[in-house]
Amino acid sequence: MEILDQTLAAIRPADLQAMADARAHQDRLTKPRGALGVLEEVAVRLAGVAGACPPPAPAPAALAIFAADHGVHAQGVTPWPREVTTQMVLNFLAGGAVANAFAAQAGVSVTVVDVGVAADLPEAPGLVSRKIAYGTADLSAGPAMTAEQAVAALEAGITVARDLVAQGNACLVTGDMGIANTTASAALICAFTGRDAADTTGRGTGADDATLRHKIEIVRRGLEVNDIPGDGDPGSRSEVVRRLAAVGGLEHAALAGFVLGAAAARVPVILDGVIAGAAALVAAALAPDAVGYCLAGHRSAEPGHAITLDHLGLRALVDLELRLGEGTGALLAYPLVSAAVRVMHEVATFDSAGVTDKDAQATLDPST
Amino acid sequence: MEILDQTLAAIRPADLQAMADARAHQDRLTKPRGALGVLEEVAVRLAGVAGACPPPAPAPAALAIFAADHGVHAQGVTPWPREVTTQMVLNFLAGGAVANAFAAQAGVSVTVVDVGVAADLPEAPGLVSRKIAYGTADLSAGPAMTAEQAVAALEAGITVARDLVAQGNACLVTGDMGIANTTASAALICAFTGRDAADTTGRGTGADDATLRHKIEIVRRGLEVNDIPGDGDPGSRSEVVRRLAAVGGLEHAALAGFVLGAAAARVPVILDGVIAGAAALVAAALAPDAVGYCLAGHRSAEPGHAITLDHLGLRALVDLELRLGEGTGALLAYPLVSAAVRVMHEVATFDSAGVTDKDAQATLDPST
Repeated sequence: MEILDQTLAAIRPADLQAMADARAHQDRLTKPRGALGVLEEVAVRLAGVAGACPPPAPAPAALAIFAADHGVHAQGVTPWPREVTTQMVLNFLAGGAVANAFAAQAGVSVTVVDVGVAADLPEAPGLVSRKIAYGTADLSAGPAMTAEQAVAALEAGITVARDLVAQGNACLVTGDMGIANTTASAALICAFTGRDAADTTGRGTGADDATLRHKIEIVRRGLEVNDIPGDGDPGSRSEVVRRLAAVGGLEHAALAGFVLGAAAARVPVILDGVIAGAAALVAAALAPDAVGYCLAGHRSAEPGHAITLDHLGLRALVDLELRLGEGTGALLAYPLVSAAVRVMHEVATFDSAGVTDKDAQATLDPST
Repeated sequence: MEILDQTLAAIRPADLQAMADARAHQDRLTKPRGALGVLEEVAVRLAGVAGACPPPAPAPAALAIFAADHGVHAQGVTPWPREVTTQMVLNFLAGGAVANAFAAQAGVSVTVVDVGVAADLPEAPGLVSRKIAYGTADLSAGPAMTAEQAVAALEAGITVARDLVAQGNACLVTGDMGIANTTASAALICAFTGRDAADTTGRGTGADDATLRHKIEIVRRGLEVNDIPGDGDPGSRSEVVRRLAAVGGLEHAALAGFVLGAAAARVPVILDGVIAGAAALVAAALAPDAVGYCLAGHRSAEPGHAITLDHLGLRALVDLELRLGEGTGALLAYPLVSAAVRVMHEVATFDSAGVTDKDAQATLDPST
């Protein structure tokens, strides 16, 4: 618990002065006010994260893919066999997955973290072993984890973030792998927003109509059997951990820690889809200021993700109907984030470039 | 007219066999079917463009910013002074504009093409002079260009595309600069889709309510004074050129040629926002198969752009409320396009990676 305590104590609000400076700087650049839309707010946010205007380039960046298995898989919530978690971890390590291709394209390093895969994995470069259990228990029959396991996974995520920042990374990117983890995500989103299972549960990577109906029922049962009220407001830290342990996955807990670790280190973290979003709800419940360090990489097709982004007040940068996980959506957003920051460093001001500024002109001469 | 004739004759439909091969290849990769959403269709489209599966990487890529002035500026359709076109061209050449920062981020070269700036520009590296006139005439008082000027601008765009491909570029990116060019874009979109001026006209880079109402009136007057019927269907090539000359800009004509030149060279072209979209409508009217070589980089906030993308059957890759032009939206899309193609080259198949494929499994064993 010590690492968690220290980390929560270290998280500061985003720097409002740096954000105000960034907004003012944007308005002096040779472009109409607001013409870069959402990207202007990204640059402002990163100024707040770094406490500096302009903010430093978010490079180098590191993707951490947290992998774990889920006891609820036994309930038939997905058409994919559980072994695919292990097979895909090996695929990441061999460089053969979509996340590897997107990371190579974006110039982002890839680290795979085993926090709960239900098989022994060989030692390999790029694999960090922080295994806490061989998968969770079935959330629809009782708590998926003990409170101790949940805290250990949170602290594993914190430590991975801290290590990656110590290695010189200036931006962290979330990834995940865990067959059945959209089921746990849906349950977590209910537990931390108060929404109904029917609103938060989706098809994941390929559930048909019957499987989807069943999956909603399993999520609902998980909330009931674990006595999670519909208030969406855990309140105390112990209740946050209890709800996380009850219906979350080991990778969700680790990802929540990863977000907290990024915030404590004042480094931005780009969230992938619904799994990372559910984890960010947990992080926000533990430390509301951590949200200021998050960027939403993409909008997943999972219905719970839009609910999550609304709850966190985040706007997704990429919206291309991806439903893969692994960090793929966040990796696509990374060049957009880099571009937003580069503008702050390299674009000329109206004054320096000798370009007429219509707004400044209007201010100087009200007759025009 | 000879360059235009040759180019139109050289444009072939996208290669349907390569596209089918690309779809089949996507389904063998270690990801759920369709999990990359819109990016799967991007890779399929590029296979059709290249006539090869997998398609070659779209690198290196070149942005061409076509710059020109507009006689309709005199009607007060924008709060920006006309001189800003020239000032921004100099800013591009000095590397100080947002397009420069985004191009540097994406590793895309920048060429500025003067097809009609209303000032003499100094010779400079990166500037190609293809000036056809010192801006267009006022489209609300008569034709903006002669037919000869429109064809000359089309051919200038074709030649620029051809030259950039000859220099080894495997992907072209459209850019534009021209104060008042959203007015001409709105008129072109009416002329080539049959929609009303009120539907296609927007605020550009900062028109207020009164200016917007006036701008709509000016677009409507331009269509009337130039006898452009509301059919949205020019039919003959001479009528396409007549409508383009009547209400278009020199940069629109050059951009239409740039799209045709890319298609003739079997190279993909990433369209920026509403100006490039309006130009692509012209290119499509001259050669419907040219649309198969286009990708829509982003969705502009201008209302005419959604109409244009619908008409062309294109889906935008980036949707971040940008309203800047210069090629900025297309430049943000370029890494996404590269990532989509990289997947086709680098991602393992279910067989090669030893990952269980739920769909293949279901096919082999109907009992599961």
